[in-house]
Amino acid sequence: MRIDLNSDLGESFGPWPMGQDAALMDSISSANVACGFHAGDPGTMRATIALAREKGVAIGAHPGFQDLAGFGRREIKATPAEVEDLVLYQVSALAGMASAQGVRLQHVKAHGALYNMACRDRALAEAIARAVVALDPSLILFGLPNSELLRAGQAAGLRVAAEVFADRSYDPDGSLTSRATPGSVIHDTQKVVDRAITMVRDNKVIAVDGSTIALQADTICLHGDTPGAAEHARVLRRALEGAGISVGSWSD
Amino acid sequence: MRIDLNSDLGESFGPWPMGQDAALMDSISSANVACGFHAGDPGTMRATIALAREKGVAIGAHPGFQDLAGFGRREIKATPAEVEDLVLYQVSALAGMASAQGVRLQHVKAHGALYNMACRDRALAEAIARAVVALDPSLILFGLPNSELLRAGQAAGLRVAAEVFADRSYDPDGSLTSRATPGSVIHDTQKVVDRAITMVRDNKVIAVDGSTIALQADTICLHGDTPGAAEHARVLRRALEGAGISVGSWSD
Amino acid sequence: MRIDLNSDLGESFGPWPMGQDAALMDSISSANVACGFHAGDPGTMRATIALAREKGVAIGAHPGFQDLAGFGRREIKATPAEVEDLVLYQVSALAGMASAQGVRLQHVKAHGALYNMACRDRALAEAIARAVVALDPSLILFGLPNSELLRAGQAAGLRVAAEVFADRSYDPDGSLTSRATPGSVIHDTQKVVDRAITMVRDNKVIAVDGSTIALQADTICLHGDTPGAAEHARVLRRALEGAGISVGSWSD
Amino acid sequence: MRIDLNSDLGESFGPWPMGQDAALMDSISSANVACGFHAGDPGTMRATIALAREKGVAIGAHPGFQDLAGFGRREIKATPAEVEDLVLYQVSALAGMASAQGVRLQHVKAHGALYNMACRDRALAEAIARAVVALDPSLILFGLPNSELLRAGQAAGLRVAAEVFADRSYDPDGSLTSRATPGSVIHDTQKVVDRAITMVRDNKVIAVDGSTIALQADTICLHGDTPGAAEHARVLRRALEGAGISVGSWSD
Repeated sequence: MRIDLNSDLGESFGPWPMGQDAALMDSISSANVACGFHAGDPGTMRATIALAREKGVAIGAHPGFQDLAGFGRREIKATPAEVEDLVLYQVSALAGMASAQGVRLQHVKAHGALYNMACRDRALAEAIARAVVALDPSLILFGLPNSELLRAGQAAGLRVAAEVFADRSYDPDGSLTSRATPGSVIHDTQKVVDRAITMVRDNKVIAVDGSTIALQADTICLHGDTPGAAEHARVLRRALEGAGISVGSWSD
Repeated sequence: MRIDLNSDLGESFGPWPMGQDAALMDSISSANVACGFHAGDPGTMRATIALAREKGVAIGAHPGFQDLAGFGRREIKATPAEVEDLVLYQVSALAGMASAQGVRLQHVKAHGALYNMACRDRALAEAIARAVVALDPSLILFGLPNSELLRAGQAAGLRVAAEVFADRSYDPDGSLTSRATPGSVIHDTQKVVDRAITMVRDNKVIAVDGSTIALQADTICLHGDTPGAAEHARVLRRALEGAGISVGSWSD
Repeated sequence: MRIDLNSDLGESFGPWPMGQDAALMDSISSANVACGFHAGDPGTMRATIALAREKGVAIGAHPGFQDLAGFGRREIKATPAEVEDLVLYQVSALAGMASAQGVRLQHVKAHGALYNMACRDRALAEAIARAVVALDPSLILFGLPNSELLRAGQAAGLRVAAEVFADRSYDPDGSLTSRATPGSVIHDTQKVVDRAITMVRDNKVIAVDGSTIALQADTICLHGDTPGAAEHARVLRRALEGAGISVGSWSD
Repeated sequence: MRIDLNSDLGESFGPWPMGQDAALMDSISSANVACGFHAGDPGTMRATIALAREKGVAIGAHPGFQDLAGFGRREIKATPAEVEDLVLYQVSALAGMASAQGVRLQHVKAHGALYNMACRDRALAEAIARAVVALDPSLILFGLPNSELLRAGQAAGLRVAAEVFADRSYDPDGSLTSRATPGSVIHDTQKVVDRAITMVRDNKVIAVDGSTIALQADTICLHGDTPGAAEHARVLRRALEGAGISVGSWSD
């Protein structure tokens, strides 16, 4: 049994550092690198690629809306054509910077509001899939299980990866419980570990109402911007491996 | 005898149009496409690539400082590392967008203040050359004849192209007369044509003091943002061809 | 009888001109000046203020979302607090620049998507009203007749102005027909003039289905970005005055 | 005897925090608040004004070049007119946001590269002074002792304040030793305290070569972005007060 662990990295900007990229890279297998629109700048991107290369972590593009002040977390009513172009621009920028270091991109994961909108909205999902196919049809597209984004990726002939969150609670319909709901973020490391193992081994998760949800889990997202994130990641990786689940990207 | 005609295109941004790209592309052989930092946006880049592809015009990247309000014309004291990263980012973005349309970039021409600074400053010139070599060593680097930029490109193993301006007067030392000097921009089309032919045929130009300057001319820059630019370009191209000089890019 | 004529001006940015500000200012009584977030830059703002002052046109702030590429026309899911802050920032910037030229702002009109969202959404409308009251409670707040924006302004103790569009068709419920609908924009100058006079004199407009809608008309918006906009404005102003309706701002 | 202690605050941006504003405000008397061009955003500005108001710290505007990625630390060759406009815009924005909280600005201190350039270049210095005078001639202009910036402020009729750095070494000509020089930044708190007291009491400082430089000291700048900055500030303030030097702004 095998799972990918991914995290959003390279989210510093200019004079402002963010995250614990180096420490996290010791535990994850795939890095989603910000591409300059919601976070990241050319220098940060270069450094993040170099770090991932050194640590043997696979690199993916993490394109978002052009909204630094809002960190790409605010929905922007963009047209499918606008989304296709901004994804293509950002993924291309990172792909070129990676190739300059002799590295090939592994995947694309849309960021924040763009990810959430594309998981729900087929036209935006298709726009993202079109951009990825046009640039490099061997790229893997990340998305929520059963989302429009995954379906659009598959329809476009892309390999897709269903992404799950071991530290978030799920509603009975399989969607993530809103962050506004108390208990929606799980801080207890042991609980997170247990959920992760169940997700990977049994392809299911227990929803907030106690019901069981079937869900495909190809990659688990680890948040890197919380205190203790790196230690948390180390514990999770060790626990997965202890349970006979190897951690690795598609490039390993 | 043969010469390339290049022009800066794709300089619209969001709701603001600029230039007469479609008309100019009937006469030029190489388009320098803005990459989003001083002008251009992903949608404009996509449309400009499509237009160049349709018209058979070779495409180059035109990276500049991140200064929309100043259109990349203001010098910014950036470090060589910063310049290397911003050039690599922008050229990569355009290269990916072009490859998504099945087109390969032909060249890189730095824009505005970045171009001028890199022509004088060896460390910045080397930074640009490093970025280009790392991304694609088959790209041709544009620069002023005898500039640090051309020398750095050659030292890095790149093919380079010496760029001349048929509508600008030259100082005796081979540099362009400052735009602030009256007469520094030549508006008379016949004079521009005569100078262009002399530049290409004889590799020389008459300076403001009447002296003769030797200069290599691989590509002539046509300004696209002046009224009548497209008509001016048509006349120049016809005159060059009438003088037995074929117009074409390195991709033709 | 009296009406205000307003237009969105100062929408150039850096090297990109937009509109025919000087010509339009001969016909309008109030200028909505972009504040740098969706259009406009400090130099454009200074020049637009100077022009309005010279022409005797009252000045208002035209704050929008921070989205140059989208010209502030794309909805961004911002919180009321974010909206309050961005309106306060932009109106303050323009107010200070105007006061530096000895001019006091007359009004505030939100731009594009921000205007449309605040006309519908009470929480955003209140956020805008709060910002305006905090900065200067004598400012007049523009909004659609019967909108949440006008109601929030009134509830906050502000003077408000109901804005109508003589060149747009109305649905029976009093809202503007979507621009996507054929015929939603009226290009015939005589029809526009007739509608404007009916709006001002009778406080009503004929909807697309022939029904009559009552609507308060304090100010008519003239679009400045269409060809012939200045001539169109001249004709409308002359026709209004010919019909005994004087044109003037609240500052006249 | 009396001295002002100032610090650059409000330098967070969007999701990226910076500095220890609340802790520093317990020790300083004047806060230089970033205005959105090199750092700061409308929400950060509002919060910083509220904090300063609560802590009784006087507020000044800290306008900089529009260069988030470079944090306003890179020189940009802007014209005096461009500098005048960008200073007027930023100071106006902050002044309005402060007035919305019932607070009046006390001073203006240019940031980073803009400050350094204006200290040396009379035309830029005059541009800044013009902007400040036009907006509010009661504002105090900060600058290096003997700088063009202070002279231009005085010539324009402004009250000026000579700013010194107790934790930086000085060259014999009275300028700050380049940060690139080892020992140019003094980390020993006791040494910083001794220098501060000498500066305030004797209006002099010992240069790197041991010579004595006369310099006017109206306000001491404390850096807020170093670890231990808040504790350092507390010690300095207590030491100054222990030496009979009261700490206060011009608004106290």
